[in-house]
Amino acid sequence: MKVVYLTEPGTMEIAEEVIPEVRKGCALVRIEYNGICGSDVHFYKDGRVGDCVLHGPFVLGHEVSGTVTEVGEGVTELKAGDRVALEPGYACGKCEFCKSGRYNLCPDVKFFAAPPVRGALQEYVVHPADMCFKLPGNVSTMEGALVEPLAVGLHAASLGEVSLGQSVVILGAGCIGLVTLLAAKARGAANIVVADLHEKRLEYARQMGATHTVNAGGGDAPAKIMEILEGGPDVVFETAGSPVTIAQTAHIVRRGGTIVLVGMSAQSEVNYNFFQVMEKEAVIKCVFRYRNLYPKAIAAISGGSINVKQIVTHTFTLEEAGKAFETVVEDAQNVVKGIIKM
Amino acid sequence: MKVVYLTEPGTMEIAEEVIPEVRKGCALVRIEYNGICGSDVHFYKDGRVGDCVLHGPFVLGHEVSGTVTEVGEGVTELKAGDRVALEPGYACGKCEFCKSGRYNLCPDVKFFAAPPVRGALQEYVVHPADMCFKLPGNVSTMEGALVEPLAVGLHAASLGEVSLGQSVVILGAGCIGLVTLLAAKARGAANIVVADLHEKRLEYARQMGATHTVNAGGGDAPAKIMEILEGGPDVVFETAGSPVTIAQTAHIVRRGGTIVLVGMSAQSEVNYNFFQVMEKEAVIKCVFRYRNLYPKAIAAISGGSINVKQIVTHTFTLEEAGKAFETVVEDAQNVVKGIIKM
Amino acid sequence: MKVVYLTEPGTMEIAEEVIPEVRKGCALVRIEYNGICGSDVHFYKDGRVGDCVLHGPFVLGHEVSGTVTEVGEGVTELKAGDRVALEPGYACGKCEFCKSGRYNLCPDVKFFAAPPVRGALQEYVVHPADMCFKLPGNVSTMEGALVEPLAVGLHAASLGEVSLGQSVVILGAGCIGLVTLLAAKARGAANIVVADLHEKRLEYARQMGATHTVNAGGGDAPAKIMEILEGGPDVVFETAGSPVTIAQTAHIVRRGGTIVLVGMSAQSEVNYNFFQVMEKEAVIKCVFRYRNLYPKAIAAISGGSINVKQIVTHTFTLEEAGKAFETVVEDAQNVVKGIIKM
Amino acid sequence: MKVVYLTEPGTMEIAEEVIPEVRKGCALVRIEYNGICGSDVHFYKDGRVGDCVLHGPFVLGHEVSGTVTEVGEGVTELKAGDRVALEPGYACGKCEFCKSGRYNLCPDVKFFAAPPVRGALQEYVVHPADMCFKLPGNVSTMEGALVEPLAVGLHAASLGEVSLGQSVVILGAGCIGLVTLLAAKARGAANIVVADLHEKRLEYARQMGATHTVNAGGGDAPAKIMEILEGGPDVVFETAGSPVTIAQTAHIVRRGGTIVLVGMSAQSEVNYNFFQVMEKEAVIKCVFRYRNLYPKAIAAISGGSINVKQIVTHTFTLEEAGKAFETVVEDAQNVVKGIIKM
Repeated sequence: MKVVYLTEPGTMEIAEEVIPEVRKGCALVRIEYNGICGSDVHFYKDGRVGDCVLHGPFVLGHEVSGTVTEVGEGVTELKAGDRVALEPGYACGKCEFCKSGRYNLCPDVKFFAAPPVRGALQEYVVHPADMCFKLPGNVSTMEGALVEPLAVGLHAASLGEVSLGQSVVILGAGCIGLVTLLAAKARGAANIVVADLHEKRLEYARQMGATHTVNAGGGDAPAKIMEILEGGPDVVFETAGSPVTIAQTAHIVRRGGTIVLVGMSAQSEVNYNFFQVMEKEAVIKCVFRYRNLYPKAIAAISGGSINVKQIVTHTFTLEEAGKAFETVVEDAQNVVKGIIKM
Repeated sequence: MKVVYLTEPGTMEIAEEVIPEVRKGCALVRIEYNGICGSDVHFYKDGRVGDCVLHGPFVLGHEVSGTVTEVGEGVTELKAGDRVALEPGYACGKCEFCKSGRYNLCPDVKFFAAPPVRGALQEYVVHPADMCFKLPGNVSTMEGALVEPLAVGLHAASLGEVSLGQSVVILGAGCIGLVTLLAAKARGAANIVVADLHEKRLEYARQMGATHTVNAGGGDAPAKIMEILEGGPDVVFETAGSPVTIAQTAHIVRRGGTIVLVGMSAQSEVNYNFFQVMEKEAVIKCVFRYRNLYPKAIAAISGGSINVKQIVTHTFTLEEAGKAFETVVEDAQNVVKGIIKM
Repeated sequence: MKVVYLTEPGTMEIAEEVIPEVRKGCALVRIEYNGICGSDVHFYKDGRVGDCVLHGPFVLGHEVSGTVTEVGEGVTELKAGDRVALEPGYACGKCEFCKSGRYNLCPDVKFFAAPPVRGALQEYVVHPADMCFKLPGNVSTMEGALVEPLAVGLHAASLGEVSLGQSVVILGAGCIGLVTLLAAKARGAANIVVADLHEKRLEYARQMGATHTVNAGGGDAPAKIMEILEGGPDVVFETAGSPVTIAQTAHIVRRGGTIVLVGMSAQSEVNYNFFQVMEKEAVIKCVFRYRNLYPKAIAAISGGSINVKQIVTHTFTLEEAGKAFETVVEDAQNVVKGIIKM
Repeated sequence: MKVVYLTEPGTMEIAEEVIPEVRKGCALVRIEYNGICGSDVHFYKDGRVGDCVLHGPFVLGHEVSGTVTEVGEGVTELKAGDRVALEPGYACGKCEFCKSGRYNLCPDVKFFAAPPVRGALQEYVVHPADMCFKLPGNVSTMEGALVEPLAVGLHAASLGEVSLGQSVVILGAGCIGLVTLLAAKARGAANIVVADLHEKRLEYARQMGATHTVNAGGGDAPAKIMEILEGGPDVVFETAGSPVTIAQTAHIVRRGGTIVLVGMSAQSEVNYNFFQVMEKEAVIKCVFRYRNLYPKAIAAISGGSINVKQIVTHTFTLEEAGKAFETVVEDAQNVVKGIIKM
């Protein structure tokens, strides 16, 4: 099978390897789509994400789907031919976090492309069968690969407890901002204000259901937002991961409202006005990946509540993997989601 | 002003009365629409609802909207000309239920057309200003009157914590069943199965977004539902108020799922299989009216998440009030919502 | 090792067997205490619990603690010599219920003494290491065995969301009623009314912190309770499992309050007044075993919030196993918890 | 009646005034106790709290209790002679926050001693009857005055969802830190670590139930706490209001845990490590006063779950009001709560 290696920052190479053997409780899956995530891009550009540094060649990719070709001993829920979305994390199942349903917090989780666990940018992977979720007939494998970023948005909207008729603000209209928008919309949010620096992204946001967009270029995004939503939004999502936008959340959130931090800040410390959130008795919640959302996400796509396909702006072949990453890096403002068809 | 009196069961008479004077903290509202509710119909037919018996002429009507013509002392949020939906209950504001936000449980609530408080089937009413909710430009006063039944569905879906991608079953496709369907849909439910005895109602349900319908005529509705939703739905709504359907909920609900009882049973006791719900650790919740939902409902209608107009199947004039009630009684299976334009 | 078999209803026999071998991920535990549970007693008396019928000799016992003598491959959290409480259920870890933290609802759970899984009334068992919870120095192994019934009470109080200053009613003062009392007390309930038919049990309840007790003998327990708690309690726990007390919950619960059904009814159907709970918008929750509570229960015992030892009224040796069951059956009213020291 | 005026920073004067007349829906209460709160002390020392500046003489005092001497029209729940605790805030009852039960967030709340509303450091006040809570026979009026600070601790513990068997950390052992400790203890927290700079306060904490105390003097309080509670506490309460301790919360909180900010920071901005809380998916909640807690607090004191009397370290007479404030300012480290007996 073909495997795409990041051999050093900026260089992708395709190698031939033996197809791995299926194991007990696992499925062998022929991968069909691989979405390119921001963390992949960080590894591609810098050879690192935060403290996590690559030493030697590495396989990226964790937004994946494909078709089961073989199942291991004891697997009864799947069979060859099933089209599946692969949830990329696999937790220990035994710690307090796993047992209480918060497996995304498991300290021993194995996650595609989180070193030392290799990713899925290759033609076949063996994956635990209970983390391979069957796609119904009306959900394509391309959509299956998009379940991963969508799940982040769904988790954010779920933690924010977005509910029917509420108003929300989303700071940042990159891929995660836009899937959060789709999730908020699908939960019935009535007013959705999206702010970003790039007009192109705001255009995407409007296409996907934002009721208002704010160009944050002038620096007074909070004031503009408060003009649109008197009293502020019920929920503010920070998806840009910038100290500037994180700091804005305190000023924007409605009295008694909720702030959800989705974008990981590269900078460790932010100057934050806690007096503002205390006086409003606001709540700040944090998103770390997601949990228990693949089945719901697939059902929402299948049932028509969420049109996730529209986030794909660029498609590439396996052979174009290098070009794919190059494009995503160079044309960041216009790319919402680049995806590789294997 | 014209006032429609139910003088005795089956007889409506229109009287002329003096327009009431606005009071401090209140608004005088010229009523434009009055929806006809099941409880109105009970009073019309039998002169009673449960233990609540009418003695003498009475004014029905609690699903109302109109235009403010005058405001009382201290009212700053409203002015003459504002189009409003009227939340029909007005609670004491001082008891443990009011203070904790559950004002629908206030034992001293005053509620339109709940004797001895008279209803709003008349040309003008004086109502507390904080219970008159302004309608945005794109929400008509007809929709404003429909906020009341919709709020019941929203409260049911909210108690049921219906969330994105879930599966739900709705037993009964009368008006309350259908607004519950709209609410579940707007919250992102992926699979919505509606069961009823009448094919016409199931047709309405399909038009409004049911993904499956079950004709409960043969008596084996639970079996048919379980065939459609393997393992049962996350949430079951009982909206028919019949001992038969209440009893079915225990057998239908998914392990760990939620039952929401919305339809008030005329019969006081139901033979219920608690063993079933205990083994599944299901939760049973009950709906009594609604609370804090008018602003959200109006926002959801305005934002397009809910098309509430479609529940209106029959419209009448004030002069046709008698005919309106007669029609609703006689043609129950085909009427979802009858509404009187004042 | 010695193993106590129930060979047929009413007959216990002690056999000698080989000590089982430890497996990967498991611990071999020398059992020190075995509490006798109501379900054990049903098997002892009738050879069945509900639909679950014994065919041939069976080992009872699921309220157990002991000392680790050996650990299997990969076990790092435990070592020989650790004193542990054994959570008796072991779930699949892969189904929707396990992944979402509700492993007590796992359809494939293996649970001590739930046929065909044998119980722990024997000198040694091999048990998954992550279900063996270490006891701190100030918690005895006898208390360790009592964590199991206590966990039921903690789960009930947790589902009922009993909080500081609330009033609760507990119907039934058997072992489960009393551990629910301990749990409610430890969560800060201010008024705790316990009702039972037996004066001796009410005496136990008062010793353990009930602020009021009601002898349900006369049949008017609800009236007596409403006299003590005007407006009814915030939470009603049904622990007797009788159709009579289940039916009472609807009449007792406070407006907006919660009913928690803990006692499994032998009878499948109960005549229930749903009108009462609907008018009060009460919630009904069900308890099926417990989840994620062993560490909290052990911490609560160690920290002094709960004195669980006081529920033990009768202690027996392994050799007295037959007598132990006989006593529990014959003297039901005076036994809260019988326990066998191995 | 005597009224204690703060005529200028540092100067208290007692004036004679006419007893106010009772109004409709209100009670006239002869005040018996007035606790001295940190905000009173700020006004006393600086003539201001944050942006709120005193202009001219002002009456402080909002932790009050007394005996009803007369009730106004329409008051049926109270009568002369009733001993009551006075909840000091009175909200509008009509805004979205009041209606949804979060009346502490009402923008129009009137609150004793929050300018321009005068406080209760005088012999009589007229107060809304529904904000006067009757004290049972075994709760003294001194305890009644302490319900106010206690309610802050109860609200903090409630937002933190402290539950049985959990571990908590409290940063700061002033009055609010200690009432939070009492609340956490009463909800069943098993491990309670309290950190402060002053040994005397830590001694108080140990007396009131802290299982561990940490002297934060050396600057490495977080490290010491993590040694005591491996993996960190389930809930961290920040009650000191200092940027240093606010910043520490991110490093201390357990994975998946909750931070509750109780102490208002004088400084508006804090350098905060959001990366830490995001990686742990922790939640940050804020406390602004309290809501719906007086009845629960009184029940908890009456039922024995909370011994609130022990927070009183200094008692003064009305005539000693000046000395009382002087003492609280000068001897801050040794005073937990100073209280004035009128």
